[in-house]
Amino acid sequence: MEQPGLFWTERMRQKVTFNMSMSLDGFVAGPNGEVDNLFGWYSSGDTEFPFPCSSFVFKVSPNSAQVLREAGHAIGAVITGKRNFSGANAWGGSPPLGVHHYVLTHHPEPEWERPGSPFTFVTDGIESAVSQAKRHAGERDVCISTASVMRQALAAGLLDEVNIDLVPVVLGSGVRLFEGDELTHLEIARVVEGHGVTHLRYRVVR
Amino acid sequence: MEQPGLFWTERMRQKVTFNMSMSLDGFVAGPNGEVDNLFGWYSSGDTEFPFPCSSFVFKVSPNSAQVLREAGHAIGAVITGKRNFSGANAWGGSPPLGVHHYVLTHHPEPEWERPGSPFTFVTDGIESAVSQAKRHAGERDVCISTASVMRQALAAGLLDEVNIDLVPVVLGSGVRLFEGDELTHLEIARVVEGHGVTHLRYRVVR
Repeated sequence: MEQPGLFWTERMRQKVTFNMSMSLDGFVAGPNGEVDNLFGWYSSGDTEFPFPCSSFVFKVSPNSAQVLREAGHAIGAVITGKRNFSGANAWGGSPPLGVHHYVLTHHPEPEWERPGSPFTFVTDGIESAVSQAKRHAGERDVCISTASVMRQALAAGLLDEVNIDLVPVVLGSGVRLFEGDELTHLEIARVVEGHGVTHLRYRVVR
Repeated sequence: MEQPGLFWTERMRQKVTFNMSMSLDGFVAGPNGEVDNLFGWYSSGDTEFPFPCSSFVFKVSPNSAQVLREAGHAIGAVITGKRNFSGANAWGGSPPLGVHHYVLTHHPEPEWERPGSPFTFVTDGIESAVSQAKRHAGERDVCISTASVMRQALAAGLLDEVNIDLVPVVLGSGVRLFEGDELTHLEIARVVEGHGVTHLRYRVVR
């Protein structure tokens, strides 16, 4: 995991991160939840990137492959929302990246609470989810995988890093990543050019 | 003007361009029109850039200075809106960059229609404004300087290039650059890292 890479940044401490593809006008999905206009960059390059612990093989630019590789290595636990969990049918029991997922919800699903489940349902809020996920992740990062949970973490002062894969499209309508948030200052940590995408990393300034 | 620069791209043809600072969540001004959270990068660097035909001296990164220098050289005419014209008090008769400004409006101001005025009022729509400004600019570009006029040009298929100075801040509310626009595909033409800003250039795909 500590192997140096093209964009590898020295790891100072465990972080809570977020990563999502976003249109230039700030949408992370269309009006009906569709993401086809945002995910073109996953198949428009010449470099194969097998998504860890899945049968997906992306075709991206070499730069994007490096960004994805680093992200995969860095993530030790994921926090997600119940809608995402249910919409993905619990990923058939094999969640993305093969890492433990903490599902923020008021309604746990007993069938996924048996010993050895890759899911933990967290019913007592974002602080608890972040705390549990950090403990599980050890030295690695905790990645938040849905916009609603990210915004809860941002509001609670628990988010360290926002990674935006900025896609060159104006959607005009849909689901916004940020909506009515407080004024938040960020710092540019890294800019990587891909093909059909610009990978932007920001540190949250507190 | 044809002097090569760090980011100089070969000029293929006259373009209609747009340039504006935007927050990560898509705002170009706060709820009351304030831009202080967006314009920090104009004074946060170590390289002086005297804004052409004005007494302003920006302090930006070397990369940003180069981007500003190229933009200044490229622009042969500006199209703006009446609110911008009036809000700036007609720039005291000395419009930005010292280039002729075409003001899209239903209400021309006779005092600025005398011979030698740096302003032309255009009352018959965006096509006419673009056509007049292109003729005036010769081989140079026509730059649109307000969001509302940009969106008219985009809708009319007259916009070639969108330059976004992406500022690492989430404003949460304010004036959006894009609002209810049609789905628009862009191509990334250039990404330049500044200090406190990322300069993104997109070509409009038609």
